[in-house]
Amino acid sequence: MATIQDVAKLAGVTPTTVSRCINNRGYISDITRKKIYDAMDSLSYRPNELARSLSMQRTNTIGVIVPHIAHPYFAELISHLENKANQFGYKVLLCSSHESDEKRQEYLTLCQSNRVSGIIICSESVSGDAISKMGIPVVQIEKSSDVFIPRVLCDNVSGGAMATQALIDAGCKNLIHIGGVIDEKMPADARANEFARICSLNNVKHSEFRYPLSLYNTMDYIDFIRNLLIENPDVDGIFASSDLIACQVNSVCHQMGINIPKDIKLVGFDDIYMSKLSIPAITTIHQPLEEMAQMAISIIDDACHDRAYPIETIFPVTLIHRDSV
Amino acid sequence: MATIQDVAKLAGVTPTTVSRCINNRGYISDITRKKIYDAMDSLSYRPNELARSLSMQRTNTIGVIVPHIAHPYFAELISHLENKANQFGYKVLLCSSHESDEKRQEYLTLCQSNRVSGIIICSESVSGDAISKMGIPVVQIEKSSDVFIPRVLCDNVSGGAMATQALIDAGCKNLIHIGGVIDEKMPADARANEFARICSLNNVKHSEFRYPLSLYNTMDYIDFIRNLLIENPDVDGIFASSDLIACQVNSVCHQMGINIPKDIKLVGFDDIYMSKLSIPAITTIHQPLEEMAQMAISIIDDACHDRAYPIETIFPVTLIHRDSV
Repeated sequence: MATIQDVAKLAGVTPTTVSRCINNRGYISDITRKKIYDAMDSLSYRPNELARSLSMQRTNTIGVIVPHIAHPYFAELISHLENKANQFGYKVLLCSSHESDEKRQEYLTLCQSNRVSGIIICSESVSGDAISKMGIPVVQIEKSSDVFIPRVLCDNVSGGAMATQALIDAGCKNLIHIGGVIDEKMPADARANEFARICSLNNVKHSEFRYPLSLYNTMDYIDFIRNLLIENPDVDGIFASSDLIACQVNSVCHQMGINIPKDIKLVGFDDIYMSKLSIPAITTIHQPLEEMAQMAISIIDDACHDRAYPIETIFPVTLIHRDSV
Repeated sequence: MATIQDVAKLAGVTPTTVSRCINNRGYISDITRKKIYDAMDSLSYRPNELARSLSMQRTNTIGVIVPHIAHPYFAELISHLENKANQFGYKVLLCSSHESDEKRQEYLTLCQSNRVSGIIICSESVSGDAISKMGIPVVQIEKSSDVFIPRVLCDNVSGGAMATQALIDAGCKNLIHIGGVIDEKMPADARANEFARICSLNNVKHSEFRYPLSLYNTMDYIDFIRNLLIENPDVDGIFASSDLIACQVNSVCHQMGINIPKDIKLVGFDDIYMSKLSIPAITTIHQPLEEMAQMAISIIDDACHDRAYPIETIFPVTLIHRDSV
């Protein structure tokens, strides 16, 4: 790769002049400037961002840590984060923890060693104490493990209420909620609480089912759903805590000869692309992921520039009526 | 953030001793070493990877450039790449070009300025000349724009033949192939050629349809597919060049009251997660993405260590029989 010395030699100037030209310091005539840029072009020379970062002790990089990349919800979130980061002049270092504490800690250390400008942690449990010691701005999306870490959430409470009410309004009398991972604090918990509250308020029979972490990790809920349907033959409505689960409920019902929405009505959560393409298309709660991604990036940017930023941001959700209710 | 000086002060040694300890240079007693590590722990100090990278003129980072992150095919590919990169000791810098030449060039420059160890370009057109000038190892996945860039592909020729033969074996007499972007060289082209060849060989009526870039960018083929079905009412089999398109064909057929597989038989390509969940589940051609990702990362690693690596690797594909044929 070409060095600053090569550029200087070709342009017939000193390396110091090239450096002054690149960093826009001191007077350089237009003729010299053109010579230097021509030399840079013909040698494909790129100023060393690493050296610049080292002198600033910070790279314009944001570490993004998610449990799964291929999960369609996280894939859409990562896509928005990368897009917004780019608009703010940041690059994205992508890390997948596969929900392992060890891997997550390894990635946090990696982000710190590489002097990232900030870290965005999506739906992951982290200790606020460990984070605040790192001295790097951190934002959590859809999880709030600690009061000291800024968090960006969607309105899970209203979302849970809207989904449940939609099923009750459609005449359901025996509801199931497929919630979060057993013994794990998740954004889905707020939805589950509202589900129970709204059902009780309307005297509707209801129960919540949670699943082991292994299902969340493999994203394969098929057997779990089949057993649930066999053991609860009277259920007439299901609120799934994600569209991925809702799509799998739809698929299992089809295999078992259960008609959606005639026999069982179904509401998902997230409004991922898949829910629109599903047959029938799935009624769901829309999370404004693009806006949430933008807020997370802008908080990191504010923190880097010592500007004030909100500690908690809650975005509204909306019910998207489709064909599964 | 804690500095090496803070660690030295707390451990009661000089910064040079801390540096020697971190970099494993020269003799340091076990007692001193323990003192230093304890101080590092209690201050949450992380050695500066930036400084190390600058002295090596290379970071252990691989730039991954894709046209779309949220596209389920690329989301699965990125997930495998991140996983394999991690196993080889690399981090992933994720870049989405949105199929814009300008953005792609911007990201290539960004990767170069940040002294990445290598770049993996997925399904993107790049000039081999521009790449070779960069002096950084580059691998292309599912695209071969230039003989000088190592490329990892799936066997698109056999894939195209298998998909077409499956439709013909199922009794189709009037086939459509939904191919790639108009006027753009794509991996799907090899599939289209085989489609035409196998159809001709079997005296089966066939035509290929390509779509404008705008559809590829928005990932929304719904209107295009509807028009295709209206203008070709006699079609009895469709080979779609991606599962994403196949899932949309399925959705449009459902809306139009066309039964799959009774009225139209359908084969996709890629074997993304969505094709399995679709109703009916979609018969498709499986691309071994995990193995392709591993090969791409290992080529970058070989190039970084001056080891020989293959210029072209073609992975076999398999026909996955499901319910759409």
